[in-house]
Amino acid sequence: MVGLLAALAFWTSGPRQPLLAEGERPNVVIIFADDLGYGDLGAYGHPTIRTPHLDRMAAEGQRWTSFYSQAPVCSPSRAALLTGRIHLRSGMFGRRQGVFFQDSHHGLPDGEITLAEALGDLGYATGIVGKWHLGHQPEYRPMRHGFDSWFGIPYSNDMDWQVPPGGEARRAAMFSPSIDYWHVPLMRDDVELERPADQTTITRRYAAEAVRFIREHRDAPFFLYVPHTMPHVPLFRSEAFADRSAAGRYGDVIEEIDWSVGQILDTLREEGLGERTLVIFSSDNGPWLSYRQHGGSAGPLRQGKGTTWEGGMRVPGIFWWPETIEPGVIREIGATTDLFTTIVPLAGGTVPDDRPLDGVDLSPVLFGTGPSLRDSMAFYRMGELYAYRRGPYKVHLVTQGRYGIGTERTEHDPPLLFHLGHDPGERYDLSAVRPDVVEDLLDAVESHRSGMTVAEPLFDVRGER
Amino acid sequence: MVGLLAALAFWTSGPRQPLLAEGERPNVVIIFADDLGYGDLGAYGHPTIRTPHLDRMAAEGQRWTSFYSQAPVCSPSRAALLTGRIHLRSGMFGRRQGVFFQDSHHGLPDGEITLAEALGDLGYATGIVGKWHLGHQPEYRPMRHGFDSWFGIPYSNDMDWQVPPGGEARRAAMFSPSIDYWHVPLMRDDVELERPADQTTITRRYAAEAVRFIREHRDAPFFLYVPHTMPHVPLFRSEAFADRSAAGRYGDVIEEIDWSVGQILDTLREEGLGERTLVIFSSDNGPWLSYRQHGGSAGPLRQGKGTTWEGGMRVPGIFWWPETIEPGVIREIGATTDLFTTIVPLAGGTVPDDRPLDGVDLSPVLFGTGPSLRDSMAFYRMGELYAYRRGPYKVHLVTQGRYGIGTERTEHDPPLLFHLGHDPGERYDLSAVRPDVVEDLLDAVESHRSGMTVAEPLFDVRGER
Repeated sequence: MVGLLAALAFWTSGPRQPLLAEGERPNVVIIFADDLGYGDLGAYGHPTIRTPHLDRMAAEGQRWTSFYSQAPVCSPSRAALLTGRIHLRSGMFGRRQGVFFQDSHHGLPDGEITLAEALGDLGYATGIVGKWHLGHQPEYRPMRHGFDSWFGIPYSNDMDWQVPPGGEARRAAMFSPSIDYWHVPLMRDDVELERPADQTTITRRYAAEAVRFIREHRDAPFFLYVPHTMPHVPLFRSEAFADRSAAGRYGDVIEEIDWSVGQILDTLREEGLGERTLVIFSSDNGPWLSYRQHGGSAGPLRQGKGTTWEGGMRVPGIFWWPETIEPGVIREIGATTDLFTTIVPLAGGTVPDDRPLDGVDLSPVLFGTGPSLRDSMAFYRMGELYAYRRGPYKVHLVTQGRYGIGTERTEHDPPLLFHLGHDPGERYDLSAVRPDVVEDLLDAVESHRSGMTVAEPLFDVRGER
Repeated sequence: MVGLLAALAFWTSGPRQPLLAEGERPNVVIIFADDLGYGDLGAYGHPTIRTPHLDRMAAEGQRWTSFYSQAPVCSPSRAALLTGRIHLRSGMFGRRQGVFFQDSHHGLPDGEITLAEALGDLGYATGIVGKWHLGHQPEYRPMRHGFDSWFGIPYSNDMDWQVPPGGEARRAAMFSPSIDYWHVPLMRDDVELERPADQTTITRRYAAEAVRFIREHRDAPFFLYVPHTMPHVPLFRSEAFADRSAAGRYGDVIEEIDWSVGQILDTLREEGLGERTLVIFSSDNGPWLSYRQHGGSAGPLRQGKGTTWEGGMRVPGIFWWPETIEPGVIREIGATTDLFTTIVPLAGGTVPDDRPLDGVDLSPVLFGTGPSLRDSMAFYRMGELYAYRRGPYKVHLVTQGRYGIGTERTEHDPPLLFHLGHDPGERYDLSAVRPDVVEDLLDAVESHRSGMTVAEPLFDVRGER
């Protein structure tokens, strides 16, 4: 009967409206890889990594080619995704520290409204399977931010090192990793399940937990957030994927994530939930290039993780919702910051009006009813605005590599100017030939800055608590 | 009736044999772009260039991710494609000149057997629509090498310059091109139709000629070779494609080529020839990076045209033959040199046994019956072996950029060693950690060299004849 109503809704409203009966809300699954680069999937042009499940997801849905994470590193990127706000507003940045560590004191402030809270208030079952990284002290964990359940790790898999200090030994450990080098706990809700987490099986266990969550909540609208631990170094994968990829250990890890995406999509199909579920795949930032073959690829884009070049923040963005999302390749601008503002209305809610939000509603593009409402992107590093994009043009006020690659900080006056349509690799500075565009962009930068509220940075306090 | 026989042949022999009746031979269309880079198509990951027809062709057929042109520049690459032989064997190289020019004396030797000759001998109608570049003197033109008809230009579209000499003026002319800057003739068979060729409409006219050729020969087996003039600089496109692409003028040009591919595939479908025609799309070498936004992109690969880095010779390779070619993404090695040796047997012939051939038969991969017979690739520049690949490993004996980009020539002893599966961008030299692999590869290099016959180089003689 639901099927019939859905079909009626489909035919009476045209193919570009959600295939749901009146009042029915879609399930939402967000799969969020860690340090996966723009060029790491088959559908995005990787020559050797095999990602048939993600490629199929992209072919059946929308593959966005100008989709951004809000930050070039982990914690701020996740804060923006879950709140719809640039991380400066929530204090999710530092002047000395880029992310939370195992001895950080703070976490995402209680006053922030996460997507899990917003959807929970609308009657959704909410679960997180994966890495949190927005504060691991009890008062900041997922259960305090709207999630009913959690299976995963509290911060990055390379934290709480047990191997000797000293650059070379640590670096060698990263390339020949053993799970006991990192004293990372695996949590179920607020209980520590194992420590160190057995990272070898973590992707496989995340897949199993995600499948179980979907089956358990098949009759309720649900929100499942799957922030993978991989492919952040150290790289681990289960036996079934070891030494299988032509792209080596990194390829093994991506292929296991791809398999796990297949598990989730297959489960949705088997449960008859495909047409009632929006699934999104993205990454928290670009590839960690300094780990060489253990890091990913930004494809044609410049630089990687930690930087405000395109390779640091432009990531895969795949949207899947059979019979509802208009399949295609989308070249308009979108960002992880837009997920909150897109999903809450789809769930029948309204976004908070007591605070500034930075996300837009991507529905017009998803459902083929109009152009993207986003035409700009702000690129922050350590709480400082380094670059700004509007339309095809991007200015760099400051450039700086990271992790040992071109790390000198350079301020540019006039700023560097690139046309990302003609030159996605940011190779050909146009500032001398298009000073008019530079001026326009600088005006836009000023306007952006004047609207930005900046909270006290919360990453910098570390040590004994 | 043919359809019924074809269906019987299909079902009795399994889905992996050509869908043709006994004795029926497939038509063959080879579309060969000029200077189109590995990363320039949507299906190969370009973020802004739209290539829906090539993307569909790739989705319906095989998209090869390790497919090579035999040379990093034009004339030798075309010689290898048409003869199945590395160009050194036919003298299609020079020690001082990389290609033929408008004042070159020589051309492809009469003794070479081209694919057009081989297929003509088997009763095929043969046509070339596009750029020849294997000798423009009357005795070397396409009509002397097995083609029944020719519509196109004899050498590159940037030759016979009419603009003042001097680097900057010439370079400026390239970025603001006008057709009368280059005194390039447009030929029909052996007759000069116009001079300078109106390059603005050349892609559109190539499409029309290709469509006409297919319709005229719909009842005969035919071989159509479409070596485009574009996207070699200077870039021209017709009104309908001007200023249409988000990727600028280069994008316009690629999108017009994509449209023309659509014209060819649509014509085959309309004429009911889709299931009887093998269509191949590739490029003669990598992108000409020194022309900045007027050059293409090698995507994740290093360097471009003129070099023996991957970006110079790895190119898109798309094979389409509905109901016969096993669709998929192919990560095995293939090369344009293999087209001769693949196609002649499909047409019912046998390849010449009176000369060494370098191509292999790609049929096992195309029809899903076995692995690729090619496991190596030799990278020559100006007749000198610079690099050699076997399996995933590649050694560089000599490296050198080109066209003003890192042009210093560097001999490497030991050679540089890269694992192209783990590191398609050739960033991480493994020679120090895998001397055993270097040794193996050097043995393979010696074995390759000992089998290589080298003719007198024919590009170097230029000037008054």
